[in-house]
Amino acid sequence: MAAPEITFWYEFASTYSYPAAMRVERLAARAGMALTWRPFLLAPIFGAQGWNDSPFNIYPAKGRYMWRDLERICDAEGLPLKTPPHRFPQNGLKAARIALALASKRRTGEFTRAVYTANFAEQRDIADDATLAGILTGMGLNATAITEAANTPENKQALKQQTDDAIARSIFGAPSFTVGNELFWGNDRLEQALAWARAGSP
Amino acid sequence: MAAPEITFWYEFASTYSYPAAMRVERLAARAGMALTWRPFLLAPIFGAQGWNDSPFNIYPAKGRYMWRDLERICDAEGLPLKTPPHRFPQNGLKAARIALALASKRRTGEFTRAVYTANFAEQRDIADDATLAGILTGMGLNATAITEAANTPENKQALKQQTDDAIARSIFGAPSFTVGNELFWGNDRLEQALAWARAGSP
Repeated sequence: MAAPEITFWYEFASTYSYPAAMRVERLAARAGMALTWRPFLLAPIFGAQGWNDSPFNIYPAKGRYMWRDLERICDAEGLPLKTPPHRFPQNGLKAARIALALASKRRTGEFTRAVYTANFAEQRDIADDATLAGILTGMGLNATAITEAANTPENKQALKQQTDDAIARSIFGAPSFTVGNELFWGNDRLEQALAWARAGSP
Repeated sequence: MAAPEITFWYEFASTYSYPAAMRVERLAARAGMALTWRPFLLAPIFGAQGWNDSPFNIYPAKGRYMWRDLERICDAEGLPLKTPPHRFPQNGLKAARIALALASKRRTGEFTRAVYTANFAEQRDIADDATLAGILTGMGLNATAITEAANTPENKQALKQQTDDAIARSIFGAPSFTVGNELFWGNDRLEQALAWARAGSP
């Protein structure tokens, strides 16, 4: 039997993807699961629902609750959080392209965690090339070469395809986890997704 | 110091309120918490957000996910569920009025669980007077007298007030839990709300 696998679908603008991204690799490893990082874009999915902004901005009571809930979650996880950030949601397009371009080097997880920290703990602009280049350099990578690889037509198309794959799997928000065809939505479903994968359900 | 308390805010049409209602009394008792049952209506809250139907119907991908997620939750809790019910959402107005009228008799919890079972496990019409009268009679109560008490102008006004109280507390969905001024949203936040109450946070 193949090793059990879990796929993590995330968007760099997404608040609840932050605690999920910071813990998914640790929890998957502890559970003996292979992990696949799949950044995608929520904007086309939200746009198809008639939203041109985060639902947390469109519905203020839900947004206020989300920030408080996220604060409690980050407190419990020992994660720094500056809330609410002055920019929300941020544009995660460039970061998502880089994350995808790093998959072949198996550095996607490390980059992803650094971008979420920049966004939610440090209030830096993750759409700024300098922020992203600084993260790559800090990882010991050639920022110029990686940025070029991220901006090839092939890599841009691969990110579009990844978003289309998310839609085809009925993903409607982030973070999401898939185990085979089973979908789990939300940071608070990570443990359940791992248990599902471990049970080796058909 | 007063005994720690938790308040459970619920709507009879709400799917995730079903598992919450079935377990809240047991978990609160185990944690040594006093529990207050507060039925309210989501329709005015959703209406203010521009929704004239459940968001699970308005956003089909979210709706399909919710039914599957609820199925997994009910499986784990050993709760029967018929999904998707042919009627969703049901009109919980009459049931909410009765639940409120039963508070003085301390029978609200028992009635609430029976109505959720009728709705989500038995696919019965909870807006039908016969369904509600049958539940009351099964509890050894005088259905006619309780229904009259539920339909007094004072009790109708009390339910309106309860919904206004929910809005004043920034409640935007069901189930919700409050501990003092702290708000927790969703069946999956019940344990966290109890832990918060137990910690006796200021």
